[in-house]
Amino acid sequence: MKKLLNKLLVPAVSSIFLLNMTSVGYAETTVSAEVGFVFNTFLFLVCGFLVMFMAAGFAMLEAGSVTSKSVSVICAKNIGLFSIAGMMFWLVGYNLAYGIPEGGYIGKFIPWSDASKIETGYSDASDWYFQMVFCATTVSIVSGTLAERIKLWPFLLFAAILSGIIYPIVMGWKWGGGWLAAANFQDFAGSTLVHSTGGAAALAGAFLLGPRLGRFTKKGEPAPMKPFAASSIPLITIGVFILWLGWFGFNGGSQLAIGTGADAIAVAKIFMNTFLAGAGGVMAAATVTRLHFGKTDVIQMLNGCIGGLVAITAEPLMPSPFAAILIGAIGGVIVVYGTKLLFALKIDDVVGAVPAHLFAGIWGTLAVPITNPDATFGAQLLGIVSINVFVFVVAYIIWAIMKSTIGIRLSKEAELKGTDVVETGVIGYAIRD
Amino acid sequence: MKKLLNKLLVPAVSSIFLLNMTSVGYAETTVSAEVGFVFNTFLFLVCGFLVMFMAAGFAMLEAGSVTSKSVSVICAKNIGLFSIAGMMFWLVGYNLAYGIPEGGYIGKFIPWSDASKIETGYSDASDWYFQMVFCATTVSIVSGTLAERIKLWPFLLFAAILSGIIYPIVMGWKWGGGWLAAANFQDFAGSTLVHSTGGAAALAGAFLLGPRLGRFTKKGEPAPMKPFAASSIPLITIGVFILWLGWFGFNGGSQLAIGTGADAIAVAKIFMNTFLAGAGGVMAAATVTRLHFGKTDVIQMLNGCIGGLVAITAEPLMPSPFAAILIGAIGGVIVVYGTKLLFALKIDDVVGAVPAHLFAGIWGTLAVPITNPDATFGAQLLGIVSINVFVFVVAYIIWAIMKSTIGIRLSKEAELKGTDVVETGVIGYAIRD
Amino acid sequence: MKKLLNKLLVPAVSSIFLLNMTSVGYAETTVSAEVGFVFNTFLFLVCGFLVMFMAAGFAMLEAGSVTSKSVSVICAKNIGLFSIAGMMFWLVGYNLAYGIPEGGYIGKFIPWSDASKIETGYSDASDWYFQMVFCATTVSIVSGTLAERIKLWPFLLFAAILSGIIYPIVMGWKWGGGWLAAANFQDFAGSTLVHSTGGAAALAGAFLLGPRLGRFTKKGEPAPMKPFAASSIPLITIGVFILWLGWFGFNGGSQLAIGTGADAIAVAKIFMNTFLAGAGGVMAAATVTRLHFGKTDVIQMLNGCIGGLVAITAEPLMPSPFAAILIGAIGGVIVVYGTKLLFALKIDDVVGAVPAHLFAGIWGTLAVPITNPDATFGAQLLGIVSINVFVFVVAYIIWAIMKSTIGIRLSKEAELKGTDVVETGVIGYAIRD
Repeated sequence: MKKLLNKLLVPAVSSIFLLNMTSVGYAETTVSAEVGFVFNTFLFLVCGFLVMFMAAGFAMLEAGSVTSKSVSVICAKNIGLFSIAGMMFWLVGYNLAYGIPEGGYIGKFIPWSDASKIETGYSDASDWYFQMVFCATTVSIVSGTLAERIKLWPFLLFAAILSGIIYPIVMGWKWGGGWLAAANFQDFAGSTLVHSTGGAAALAGAFLLGPRLGRFTKKGEPAPMKPFAASSIPLITIGVFILWLGWFGFNGGSQLAIGTGADAIAVAKIFMNTFLAGAGGVMAAATVTRLHFGKTDVIQMLNGCIGGLVAITAEPLMPSPFAAILIGAIGGVIVVYGTKLLFALKIDDVVGAVPAHLFAGIWGTLAVPITNPDATFGAQLLGIVSINVFVFVVAYIIWAIMKSTIGIRLSKEAELKGTDVVETGVIGYAIRD
Repeated sequence: MKKLLNKLLVPAVSSIFLLNMTSVGYAETTVSAEVGFVFNTFLFLVCGFLVMFMAAGFAMLEAGSVTSKSVSVICAKNIGLFSIAGMMFWLVGYNLAYGIPEGGYIGKFIPWSDASKIETGYSDASDWYFQMVFCATTVSIVSGTLAERIKLWPFLLFAAILSGIIYPIVMGWKWGGGWLAAANFQDFAGSTLVHSTGGAAALAGAFLLGPRLGRFTKKGEPAPMKPFAASSIPLITIGVFILWLGWFGFNGGSQLAIGTGADAIAVAKIFMNTFLAGAGGVMAAATVTRLHFGKTDVIQMLNGCIGGLVAITAEPLMPSPFAAILIGAIGGVIVVYGTKLLFALKIDDVVGAVPAHLFAGIWGTLAVPITNPDATFGAQLLGIVSINVFVFVVAYIIWAIMKSTIGIRLSKEAELKGTDVVETGVIGYAIRD
Repeated sequence: MKKLLNKLLVPAVSSIFLLNMTSVGYAETTVSAEVGFVFNTFLFLVCGFLVMFMAAGFAMLEAGSVTSKSVSVICAKNIGLFSIAGMMFWLVGYNLAYGIPEGGYIGKFIPWSDASKIETGYSDASDWYFQMVFCATTVSIVSGTLAERIKLWPFLLFAAILSGIIYPIVMGWKWGGGWLAAANFQDFAGSTLVHSTGGAAALAGAFLLGPRLGRFTKKGEPAPMKPFAASSIPLITIGVFILWLGWFGFNGGSQLAIGTGADAIAVAKIFMNTFLAGAGGVMAAATVTRLHFGKTDVIQMLNGCIGGLVAITAEPLMPSPFAAILIGAIGGVIVVYGTKLLFALKIDDVVGAVPAHLFAGIWGTLAVPITNPDATFGAQLLGIVSINVFVFVVAYIIWAIMKSTIGIRLSKEAELKGTDVVETGVIGYAIRD
């Protein structure tokens, strides 16, 4: 498969559209250690605040996507999970991931501590900040899928487990130098580690939680959209723009350094490819929905952007611009048909997070060997399968335990009243003439 | 109190959770003066634009918090006060603060001018930009409290006085090297200088303005929420996320330098602590409202985030991560009960700015000596009392003069119609089926 | 005129308010080539993501400005045009602009490619990223003017032509070193190149498209506002704040370097002037609408901010702070009366983009010689006329061809139903009690 793609696709495309991406080779950098340290720390902080802002993007995307009777709860969930994820990642997550033995499976259950030295190349707290917002992103993915029928506090409990235990273990396998790193699994900024992890945990929850009342007709088709209409398209739109903005930090910062000319060139290429993959996802979703279903589905365009961005995340540096557009466009198409697939399976994913993060994440991770000669399809498959199965199974068990003990689903009466009235006591929009 | 806390809390916590925060000591930096100058200027610009964006955060927080008949006016106020504050801070504010004699009380009434030199360590305009957005933040705090019944232009006049005179005088006392600096008052990024100043000026206005019509029943309880329902929870949510984002610039930039490894380490620690304090505030407010009042109050979670952030602002560098969470959590709790206190006193603070900025600011400033050995409770009390009394009294006098001359409150008819119809002539939301 | 202004205005003002803006002169910088390379690349990336975010600002500004039956389509347009513009600017735009012969008229139709070298001072991909978002901004300007009656896909086709062909040609004339650069036309960050280009293309479309049904009465006056009420003032407000934020990147990044102390000083001055011009625009529009029309028009305040920012864009470095306020304030006044002029001409510009971008852009470009001694009114006029006429004529021809072939206007029935129902099938807001 890889050889076939390499033989057919890449050269054909190269000869027409593709660009020579050869980088400047540097025998050695002339930048001093301390100046490099400041640059790298600054990069982590700037990219970190961009990724932090993605929490707002998810909050708006989800608030706009749910019906107007579940809006204030989704806001509570998003700011709550972000807070919990950050505290858990300080308390155990960071060292559970980075304290892993070389080639190992799990790190240490100890809080983060600061041992910054000029020699390590960046401040420890800046690294914590940057990695923490990745952890929070993973949890943000889950909240949208399960909206409108899950109980608030059980969700927050799951958020603590996912951010404190599940995600850090998986993260350590690759980025902590664990067994998947040793197996040459490649995932530059987390198509699988972050996005599929979030998507798989969401999918497990959706199975156990079941769809919203009345979401699917007996024939297996989705009910008419109207009672399940997204409350605000502009909020989804600003959410996606914020996510796109944040993704420059997400992928760009994953170069982990900007202290040399070579690193600066790499970060800039990543920004460019990240932009183009999102653009490819948008227009692929627009075209496909227009041609196949009649209307230009704006929600799929927006979600297609996410799909394109997730797809490029596994390897945002090596693809040519044209390849980045293509990888993103396929991500966008996957989102459109993945959404249909979930409908067919009667799985109710309120915001389409499973297609955008899990499905497009699988695609992006699989696509790495097309442009990165160091990657192999075998190692990519190993990483995809092991991480997704691990996360899905562990998440399923946790959801199941919670379901049979504290309960995870609101009562029928509460769901019909709306989560806002029941959980937060505040409606999302109070608009009077 | 300080000794007690030092003896009981800190070591107990240290042995279980706390982290060794010892920094790398640098005999000398190897970064050249010009490279450091660029780094520092860049820091001011990046942190400055983050704080600038807080103006949008306040605008959304307030637009979402008012009822739907006062939305467009609150937008006008927010963009208007920001514009006025910036112009005033150029015209007089900057030198009123920085032109102060050492240990003195007031600076010079002259406009800002540029005398940048490599030796001063950063560009003067970048410093102006960074300090200006702090000044604007102070004024933003006031607008929400007084919403829905204050006249637009008198409010803008007060904004000019607060940003051009009151805030710069207070700012000079500490950051300009005035008498409070000489008295060893510590306020790293402005829990008191910025946030309490805004809160005290708002409180003075709220006293003179009185509550919205029908806000309190004769029994002294707040009226049923419904007629005073917040117009949009998602707007409050994005507002708070933007404020949280901006706060990294607010506190991180207040290190005033990132041109050495040591400064970079400090800025990164500040980012981490700022995040954790906000997180602590969110979850403390969520827990307290759920346990004490039944529902998980999303508005208090969001305002609790602000309270946590305000609390850490006086000293975001020295606390361990655990201490930062704790300081923020107490800030969040203060917001919840501070809001109840204002209700009990029949003071109508539409967005809860007084609890979040004034009360949590007092707590944060008082807490500095717990983690910073250079600070004393005496000096902190001196600063808190002198600034809050000065601002409250001066603001009260100005509001009173305005009340008895141009008037500050809309007519009863105008208030019932809604400020939007009367002042801007444009309703906030025009949504038709 | 220039002499008059120089003789009367500038010295009079100088003696009272104006500041000595003399920069530090540097014989030579001490920053090494590689460190400078990293700084400059970092500047492009940071300023680039700020400008990228302006796409979200335009989306919100426009979603808030249209009536509630055209909201989801405007969101689709904004994310679609941004995606298309980016891909076109990679495919042909970049080299069409930068591949121009010295003093020439048009560059090369080849895709962007990376040839980064330390000697060129910044990474090529970072330059592409920064210039791309300018290109996208130009197209964003068009979508608002033509909202609520243009067909979606013909609009996207025009977006491709404008971003891939028209804008890059004009951009090359000045920034690529073409004939207008040779003629000493000055346009620092694109008052004319970007903003007037977008405005002129929008105006051409508005002529051919005609106004919304019922927008103007037979007497030539606008219809009562109500049926055409802006759907959400807070969305317009956050849109404008995002644009203001992005503008620091837009103008600041146009210094093209921050690798020396002198450049850092220049970038900081640009941030300061950019802020002040926006502030001037806001308060000028507030004052004029209050005094002349009775109510303080919040929409004009917000649009006045844009007008002020567009006006300073041609020369954000040289003006003193006072001059920046004045230039911006005049931009704000132009927006107010420009809007009235379009009403009088029965041209339906839904968001007021033509006054804010075209008219204020002309003013800003004309004003350059007042503060920049290297500029002349003759060269400025030449650039303004040639670019605006070129863009208007070419855009008019393209719109006309599209009108007579694929059609550009929705049917009467479709327009009455609302673009959302017809094009995307999803309403913008679904808010139920």
